Amino acid sequence: MITVIGFDADDTLWVNEPNYLETEKEFCRMLSAWKPAEETSALLFSTEMANLELYGYGAKSFILSMIETAVSVSAGQVGALTISEITRLGKSLINKDVELLDGVEETLQQLSAGYRLILATKGDLADQERKLGKSGLEKYFHHIEIMRDKKDDNYRRLLNHLDIPAADFLMVGNSLKSDIIPVLNLGGHAIHIPYHTTWQHEKTDDLPVYPFFTELRTIKQLPQFIATYESNH
Amino acid sequence: MITVIGFDADDTLWVNEPNYLETEKEFCRMLSAWKPAEETSALLFSTEMANLELYGYGAKSFILSMIETAVSVSAGQVGALTISEITRLGKSLINKDVELLDGVEETLQQLSAGYRLILATKGDLADQERKLGKSGLEKYFHHIEIMRDKKDDNYRRLLNHLDIPAADFLMVGNSLKSDIIPVLNLGGHAIHIPYHTTWQHEKTDDLPVYPFFTELRTIKQLPQFIATYESNH
Repeated sequence: MITVIGFDADDTLWVNEPNYLETEKEFCRMLSAWKPAEETSALLFSTEMANLELYGYGAKSFILSMIETAVSVSAGQVGALTISEITRLGKSLINKDVELLDGVEETLQQLSAGYRLILATKGDLADQERKLGKSGLEKYFHHIEIMRDKKDDNYRRLLNHLDIPAADFLMVGNSLKSDIIPVLNLGGHAIHIPYHTTWQHEKTDDLPVYPFFTELRTIKQLPQFIATYESNH
Repeated sequence: MITVIGFDADDTLWVNEPNYLETEKEFCRMLSAWKPAEETSALLFSTEMANLELYGYGAKSFILSMIETAVSVSAGQVGALTISEITRLGKSLINKDVELLDGVEETLQQLSAGYRLILATKGDLADQERKLGKSGLEKYFHHIEIMRDKKDDNYRRLLNHLDIPAADFLMVGNSLKSDIIPVLNLGGHAIHIPYHTTWQHEKTDDLPVYPFFTELRTIKQLPQFIATYESNH
């Protein structure tokens, strides 16, 4: 019986990836005198991946990787004023308003009456707490977990900490790699709600074939689906 | 009766501030063609303070503030290679070995037999989890809390989350401002173990005069002190 429902945040509850894409586009434009956008963009992604272990996820890591990429794309010729512009661009990414996805608030409200809801997101602490504060959704969650990463081990520690068996846990999110596969690996339940755009790093060729895997089109289908799902188990 | 003991991490369990000071010294040296070290240092601190709300604490924020300061100290003249050097300096700060303070491991080992120990630190998630992993101390802690900040409200949420009354909680740390005063404000107990150097931002003129406030010279005095303290209450 499901007692706890975990929600991913970025691109599950609110808009995130489009803001990063927009920032990246502007960043590539700034450096267009040196390289075409596709090359800058590819180099930015490989810089982010190289820095991931050291920096972790989130907006500050992204800004640092943009700065590093700018130096490299320009072969050490980029000016301090462009560096300043990149910082400004990064700060405005952090400061963006939080835009809830359609149906999120009523779905959380409805589910919070029957389940313990937790928010399980990875990224930067300052950044995710700010977004959560701006979202107005904090009141629906029994527990907030900002994770360094979302692999099997991270979820195992989360479930231990919450003292719940995996079989009682349902995770909802837009990333197969970070929200669905690790939870299914532990014997939990997971519902995939795809978002129209996915960060390259979150893409995976592994398709979950587990019995408990489901894909929904919108978060609004969740309460009805869970009720049916529970009555069939 | 004290049941849970919280420990600050940076400069309470392991060396931190001296690494930042060393990095800052090297940073000021890089910019010495433009400004004397004291001016660069003062500007770096005010940049950090201006960025604190947006970036939060930790090494990535520090690197971003160094880059911003370099642009400003050089009036936009700093070259991309210096920016690169600053990034390299920041990465080596993140990659530093973790050096435990004297007596930490045996004290935690001893206290973990009689109390639930928690680690309550602020800063950057990736950074603090890496340091904890390197420290080998994780096994002594029942719970790890990496906090966005360490003010009254943050501690209040932590105690609610752990479901313990403030009167059962003892906090140990090197910062009066972040580890001692907020916990005393909530009615908890706190022991101050000063470190030989303190970040300017952690300094305070408020001297705690609460009955439960104690200062020890080294963490090794903790088990004996707590035993005596408890038998007198």
